Amino acid sequence: TSVSRGIAAGIRHYCKNTPTKLRVSQALSGAELGSNIKVQGWVRSVRAQKANVFLHVNDGSSLQSLQVVASSELSDPLLTFGSAVEVTGILKKSPHQKQPVELDAKQINVVGECNPVDFPFKIKERHGLEYIRQFPHLRCRTNAFSSLLRIRSEATAAIHSYFKDNGFVEINTPIITSNDCEGAGELFQVEPSGPDYADGENFFSVPAYLTVSGQLHLEVVSGAFSKVYTFGPTFRAENSQSRRHLAEFYMVEAEISFTQSLEDLTKVMEDMFRFATEHVLAHCVEDVDLFHKHVTPGHRDTVDAMIKNSFPVITYREAIDILRRSSERFAFPTDWGCDLKTEHEKYLVKHCGNIPVFVTDYPYDLKPFYARDNQDHPERTAAAVDLLVPGVGELCGGSLREERLNLLSARLEEYLDLRRFGSVPHGGFGLGFERYLQCILGVDNIKDVVPFPRFSHSCLL
Amino acid sequence: TSVSRGIAAGIRHYCKNTPTKLRVSQALSGAELGSNIKVQGWVRSVRAQKANVFLHVNDGSSLQSLQVVASSELSDPLLTFGSAVEVTGILKKSPHQKQPVELDAKQINVVGECNPVDFPFKIKERHGLEYIRQFPHLRCRTNAFSSLLRIRSEATAAIHSYFKDNGFVEINTPIITSNDCEGAGELFQVEPSGPDYADGENFFSVPAYLTVSGQLHLEVVSGAFSKVYTFGPTFRAENSQSRRHLAEFYMVEAEISFTQSLEDLTKVMEDMFRFATEHVLAHCVEDVDLFHKHVTPGHRDTVDAMIKNSFPVITYREAIDILRRSSERFAFPTDWGCDLKTEHEKYLVKHCGNIPVFVTDYPYDLKPFYARDNQDHPERTAAAVDLLVPGVGELCGGSLREERLNLLSARLEEYLDLRRFGSVPHGGFGLGFERYLQCILGVDNIKDVVPFPRFSHSCLL
Repeated sequence: TSVSRGIAAGIRHYCKNTPTKLRVSQALSGAELGSNIKVQGWVRSVRAQKANVFLHVNDGSSLQSLQVVASSELSDPLLTFGSAVEVTGILKKSPHQKQPVELDAKQINVVGECNPVDFPFKIKERHGLEYIRQFPHLRCRTNAFSSLLRIRSEATAAIHSYFKDNGFVEINTPIITSNDCEGAGELFQVEPSGPDYADGENFFSVPAYLTVSGQLHLEVVSGAFSKVYTFGPTFRAENSQSRRHLAEFYMVEAEISFTQSLEDLTKVMEDMFRFATEHVLAHCVEDVDLFHKHVTPGHRDTVDAMIKNSFPVITYREAIDILRRSSERFAFPTDWGCDLKTEHEKYLVKHCGNIPVFVTDYPYDLKPFYARDNQDHPERTAAAVDLLVPGVGELCGGSLREERLNLLSARLEEYLDLRRFGSVPHGGFGLGFERYLQCILGVDNIKDVVPFPRFSHSCLL
Repeated sequence: TSVSRGIAAGIRHYCKNTPTKLRVSQALSGAELGSNIKVQGWVRSVRAQKANVFLHVNDGSSLQSLQVVASSELSDPLLTFGSAVEVTGILKKSPHQKQPVELDAKQINVVGECNPVDFPFKIKERHGLEYIRQFPHLRCRTNAFSSLLRIRSEATAAIHSYFKDNGFVEINTPIITSNDCEGAGELFQVEPSGPDYADGENFFSVPAYLTVSGQLHLEVVSGAFSKVYTFGPTFRAENSQSRRHLAEFYMVEAEISFTQSLEDLTKVMEDMFRFATEHVLAHCVEDVDLFHKHVTPGHRDTVDAMIKNSFPVITYREAIDILRRSSERFAFPTDWGCDLKTEHEKYLVKHCGNIPVFVTDYPYDLKPFYARDNQDHPERTAAAVDLLVPGVGELCGGSLREERLNLLSARLEEYLDLRRFGSVPHGGFGLGFERYLQCILGVDNIKDVVPFPRFSHSCLL
């Protein structure tokens, strides 16, 4: 008896010579048809007929389950939806179109029971994202959320691949930091808990915070590396219950030395977006289909339009003109100098054909101290760019950095040192990874694209 | 004039047909010999001769620099060690053995000056790791630390590859958590800073901490996925200045469902170690050589022995016997039931031939509540395993998890729920990534293998 190596890898193996696109899970890889194998997983469906019981066993390696056929004698009242089983049997060609192989069970062992009355998910029911969100410790056992987790894993890998293939070095920027990059003020402070540290002295000798951006640390390294990036958790102590904000979220940030213009940045943002999206569509076919067909029907057309068209670039000035010419009534003002709000961003995206759009050259006063001054009096703009996307609004924000020591009014001594010793023109950007997943899957609430969401008044598990 | 695409990729291109193993950086990829190109980077050496100036320009893509040859007229007093330059010139075959190509400069532009008197690193000096550690914002500009960052990036990619290739799904376990996985007590607490939150109410409604391990969250997901892993930052509020501890460090953690025995875990640990190490040795040849030849001479033999030999497995009982038979005087006791200290771990590694060794089946009372009870009275051990490695001691710790509801005395309601609904035998482990880098590079101090070290009384930048 050879032990399961994964249903997904397994079925893929048998699909090579079949017209079907099915992929399943971990038991089968390399096993010959007719051989005796052991499969392990969770029961996703049970169907009893006169002589036989049909099970679908899933091991998380794909959405697809392996069909198990057992004679009624092997039936067991513990064989319920959600229970964990080990099945030994003979691998056979399936007579059904739906799957290339099935398992003719010789022995079924229920390793973990699952009482269907207590279990919050019911067989054959399609529970909504909002319902399953109530069970953070169990929701990965639903089809939708297990698909989400596989997509998230694959999208992460795709983003790393994009950067590696393009010569970027990954830098682990710190989570705990003594500086406040954005000056935004919405910081979490970090101190040891417990009585040993109640003397009021800081553990790090200085107040320490959770990072809001790895940018300053990337800038340090981009003084010796032309291309660097980081991809990790970032924090905001925002007291909001928005569908677009979390207290802990993942950000992709890149920094590129010797940049000539904002085009050097927008090219990387657009290429990365397209590469990651095409990769996910190609490698998570069934998982993405589940979202595009059942969770957010109709969204596939939006995604196809996003990857087929190149992203338009408009200046902030042009954006303001578009907004002011529009017949739409906005809640917030649209004068030159006003920040673009979500309502404006969504309008601009629609105006441009419901595809991602770059907005460049924002008023200098709207952007942080490190954005490069365009010195274009009287308006005075900064060489900054945001990428706005359908359904989400702002996905990326970037800028050329002010590399000129005399123009930089920051007070950080180290930041000034970086300009003192071999300073170069550079720029970078950040992308909100959860918003990216919302964008490609059409998921409305950011809490549904992260394994364990953290927001004000909620930190479950 | 085509613009640089990276000296490393470039020189690799020209090395294809040369016997040399040299790899350089970002300017050259695809450019024909004799064509006009632009190269951007930092000056790593300047040497003036009568008619010519020789520069080495590095862009961080590899240790190797591109040699630039310029007529003395192009010389400039600002062309100093550490300055940033843009060089335009003709790519030529180099007459020297050391490099396949060189750049015949037509124009040199100093983009960023670097005053060699103020700059803390001096040309041609080999600064020690301890010296450069004083300059966290500049040390990436040294050869040693830029090599370290490339190795770290490559090792990270190798570990992700290992897991992806073996069917593991990556799960982003949360940084902020309301539980204390290890019960160790050395926790950082997280609360918003600033006056808005001074009312004593918790932001998350419950006390929230920085994670000490993603294990419990991986266990949640391993109720639907046979193989999952996480790779990210982890935290300990340890008030120590040890060479092996940081307040913020990276951990690789994996969880495998349907495990039969500790062998299922040790196989993954050993395979991953070997895969990552062989990958780094093959892909970072010059960077690793710099460490093995100049920073930690002699360490290469240790590394070669580690990947050539399979890792021995001894029980805790055997380990205690070895320690008690030894003639060495230990500071800590070696009775059955005592925890293994660093001195013991290092002795055991030496005893086994200075290669990594697994120690299994520790006393039940030494291991956390989730370790599986071996029920082997009267000794009572737990199915737990540590991997001890040369120079570092404990690198990995893992265990089978107690999947039996009636034996599990934890108080976490969710943790019990996981056993209630389709519980399966499972197990997992964690590996300290910085210790792994120490181990393969022979670096004594953990602060030298992380871009921005955090420890008690220190949180620079």
